[in-house]
Amino acid sequence: MRNLTRRDALKLASVGAVAALQPATAAHAAVQRHEAVPVWEVFEVALEANAAGNPFTTVHLSASFSLGHRTVEVDGFYDGSSNGMGLYKIRFMPDAMGAWEYKVNSNLSALDGQQGSFTALPPLKNAHGPVRVRNTHHFAYADGTPFFPFGTTCYAWVHQSEALQQQTLETLRAAPFNKLRMCVFPKDYEYNKNEPDLYPFERSASGVNDYTRPNPAFFAHLEERISDLRAMGIEADLILFHPYDRWGYAAMPPEADDLYVRYLLARFSAYRNIWWSLANEFDLMKAKSTADFDRIFHIVEQQDACAHLRSIHYSITMYDYSRPWVTHASLQSTDFAAAPSYLTDWKKPVCYDEVMYEGNMERRWGNLSGDEMTRRFWLGVINGCYVTHGETYLDPEQPFDEKLSPPIYWSHGGPLRGSSPKQIAFLRKLLEETAAPSEQKNARTGLAADTKPYYLNATACEADGKTVHTILYYFDFHQPVWYEFVLPKGSFMAEWIDPLAMTISAQPGKYSGKTRLRLPEKPYQALRFRAIT
Amino acid sequence: MRNLTRRDALKLASVGAVAALQPATAAHAAVQRHEAVPVWEVFEVALEANAAGNPFTTVHLSASFSLGHRTVEVDGFYDGSSNGMGLYKIRFMPDAMGAWEYKVNSNLSALDGQQGSFTALPPLKNAHGPVRVRNTHHFAYADGTPFFPFGTTCYAWVHQSEALQQQTLETLRAAPFNKLRMCVFPKDYEYNKNEPDLYPFERSASGVNDYTRPNPAFFAHLEERISDLRAMGIEADLILFHPYDRWGYAAMPPEADDLYVRYLLARFSAYRNIWWSLANEFDLMKAKSTADFDRIFHIVEQQDACAHLRSIHYSITMYDYSRPWVTHASLQSTDFAAAPSYLTDWKKPVCYDEVMYEGNMERRWGNLSGDEMTRRFWLGVINGCYVTHGETYLDPEQPFDEKLSPPIYWSHGGPLRGSSPKQIAFLRKLLEETAAPSEQKNARTGLAADTKPYYLNATACEADGKTVHTILYYFDFHQPVWYEFVLPKGSFMAEWIDPLAMTISAQPGKYSGKTRLRLPEKPYQALRFRAIT
Repeated sequence: MRNLTRRDALKLASVGAVAALQPATAAHAAVQRHEAVPVWEVFEVALEANAAGNPFTTVHLSASFSLGHRTVEVDGFYDGSSNGMGLYKIRFMPDAMGAWEYKVNSNLSALDGQQGSFTALPPLKNAHGPVRVRNTHHFAYADGTPFFPFGTTCYAWVHQSEALQQQTLETLRAAPFNKLRMCVFPKDYEYNKNEPDLYPFERSASGVNDYTRPNPAFFAHLEERISDLRAMGIEADLILFHPYDRWGYAAMPPEADDLYVRYLLARFSAYRNIWWSLANEFDLMKAKSTADFDRIFHIVEQQDACAHLRSIHYSITMYDYSRPWVTHASLQSTDFAAAPSYLTDWKKPVCYDEVMYEGNMERRWGNLSGDEMTRRFWLGVINGCYVTHGETYLDPEQPFDEKLSPPIYWSHGGPLRGSSPKQIAFLRKLLEETAAPSEQKNARTGLAADTKPYYLNATACEADGKTVHTILYYFDFHQPVWYEFVLPKGSFMAEWIDPLAMTISAQPGKYSGKTRLRLPEKPYQALRFRAIT
Repeated sequence: MRNLTRRDALKLASVGAVAALQPATAAHAAVQRHEAVPVWEVFEVALEANAAGNPFTTVHLSASFSLGHRTVEVDGFYDGSSNGMGLYKIRFMPDAMGAWEYKVNSNLSALDGQQGSFTALPPLKNAHGPVRVRNTHHFAYADGTPFFPFGTTCYAWVHQSEALQQQTLETLRAAPFNKLRMCVFPKDYEYNKNEPDLYPFERSASGVNDYTRPNPAFFAHLEERISDLRAMGIEADLILFHPYDRWGYAAMPPEADDLYVRYLLARFSAYRNIWWSLANEFDLMKAKSTADFDRIFHIVEQQDACAHLRSIHYSITMYDYSRPWVTHASLQSTDFAAAPSYLTDWKKPVCYDEVMYEGNMERRWGNLSGDEMTRRFWLGVINGCYVTHGETYLDPEQPFDEKLSPPIYWSHGGPLRGSSPKQIAFLRKLLEETAAPSEQKNARTGLAADTKPYYLNATACEADGKTVHTILYYFDFHQPVWYEFVLPKGSFMAEWIDPLAMTISAQPGKYSGKTRLRLPEKPYQALRFRAIT
């Protein structure tokens, strides 16, 4: 299946130039002992060597990492030169404890055959591994801890001033979000006209890109931000391509796309908090076809030794999320009624990654009230899916001037101004309780058909796939004075929940079987039943 | 085109029995002079005669009404017997002033050949004639006065106690509604288990119906209620068939359906405030096919000399509203985004006749908040359509007991408890202002494409089909801080409108051309531009 190899793609490489290179160290064949690394952290081998020509294209570098009978191959990458020496790195995220060994493979003799070993220790306290699909429609970290994506969006935050980036990190530290949609490439769009400090490729004074030469400083910076997010427990839903472009990145030739993607994979795969979002609004990228994205999906699938989550986001024309190389759907949609069909048809988790944004912008998609944003979170979650937040507030004092506009969180990051994040935090807590995180083996599942009310939306959690211990209902615009709930086996307590006021009111009594309950006669309310054990 | 005649349908008739009948009056051939009748009121010829057999089926009766070169034929009907004599009536609604003459045709010699005349006077002050389709997608009375349907629903109100019916009339007198959806047949449904005082057909003690014998008292009662509505300027959107039935009316044989429909047409067509709604949720009527309704549509189309509006209402499977005999669509839908396609495809007015109900009932369709009901009215109206209200409040003191439930307005009538009627009244006033009723020639039309904002919904009125004088925008969940409106030719004043708080705030200044406007940054707001003349 590795018929599309790194070598094939590097059509620009001049392999003949490699012979003249010098060995990186004198102790060429010795086994290097490295410091121990916890599981799910980045283990890095850094090597120095010089190569003739363009090291991004002429040097092939990988390493085989072995633990007992397992061997995993990962690609290395060129990280620029330091003190006149070329710097090469190989990164690996150990996923199991024990004594790992590696051996370098390269067409650069100075690198080829280098060996080393390290011990993978128990994971750090807050590290749970990369997020995987769990129970068909949901997610969990590699260690089994359920992961409920409560995403947010700061598309171009890494391309803003350092001060603003730090402010964004501060915002995220206090926010309820555990996934961030963000672009690798800088963004050209309304309210997004600034030049980035760093460009992803070498670039002439007149702005001509050399797509064969990724800019190590650019990627090192991005890496630092991903690292910052990792430290905060936030998944980086990294957007590889997008159509909002004036520099050329949206219309690179396929060879350049592939070189870029392989470079990204080599640098970032070892970060456990990476999700690959192949594109934002891929269908607006006129220079690319769906077949191009299919090809890139295959590269990601084959070269990412950690098998991070993979998806792609559309504007109008949906990608076919049933394709086997897509791990989950990443929708731009507010059609929550379609969620059950999506889940049934695709048999994958479904993320509503753009449901419009809370804000006051003049654009159709940028002026939801906070309550409406919160409502959309509930509609997604209660239908068994996940939802992503975004915020687009203009400064009401100077709304007309695009240049005077303050940082707009949706793209620039900066402070949050809206009312939905608090309400979303409340929902996240409810959902995490619903999944009973104290019992690590539990995960969220659907509610059995015979206990599902005929119009209220509900989600539930079964302990060990058998006993329902929590059911959460959302009433949306319905405000019935009573409703008959058919409870599953067991005895339950009931709580009225106000998703907007963020209150929980325990109701007296125990409930079981067919339960007629008086309800608050207010729209946008919720109800939770929890098993009494 | 009259191949399906009244005679064909009366397959049960025994024509041979007619010969034995006696003349109704001695002055058989004399021309009777009647009192003058205003245009659009009911002119009635009442005749007495005796017939052997079942007069509903054996007697054929019609009259030709002539004014100058025009002749209109209308069917008469048997209205029971009085003092031992059969009572026959022929009703006619004159639509033009002048000296009308009529001549009776019958197989009953006592009736046949009778003649008379009357003068049609100018219409009464508040009579504007029957409602017609106007400007493709809208309605107007026959005299050209625009009619904006603001409907409501009391399905079974005529089958409740007299006291409750009077209370309903009192409610309607103070309510903002000018169209009432109501069933001819009594209703069997949850919360609808009472026996009616009157049945539409003769009925044995054990409940066996004689569908060949309509009950004149039943229809006289219904007539009185239609008359009451007419006096209040309310259109009776009369539902001929419905599936909620325990008496047999939903599953009569085709001959019985046709006799019933012809009887209804003969009795009610002369009431100017009639709309024919062939069925409520026709697709739930398992004993009927779409072809049955097509057949009934043809009967209505051919026998109704006044050509009242005709439609049919579905539950799940839509009737094909493009068919030529349907005058307007009568939807059960909340898909307002589809409205532009409906209007374009069908080229007819579109009424969203069921958008769920304001209330607190436990059923999916019966527990909208008042604000949500009002929002649905705005969404319909702003998309160029019309919307029908309904209300389903249970008594919060005894919500669980169906038998103890108070009158529920949606079916029984009685008082209104909800908050939406006031807000709907506010919208109705705005819409009537938008159409400039002071200029009778104006009617509501669409907004030209080049002045239509790209996501805000808008409706507008053009004076004499040329100059836009009012534009009404609705923002729904959008809360932009500003928006650029492209105004048509002319100078405009602007008003912020709060549809829920029912306030109008005039903004200072005049506006023309491309107008950037600061907006209130609240969801569910509206904006009106009015031309300064």
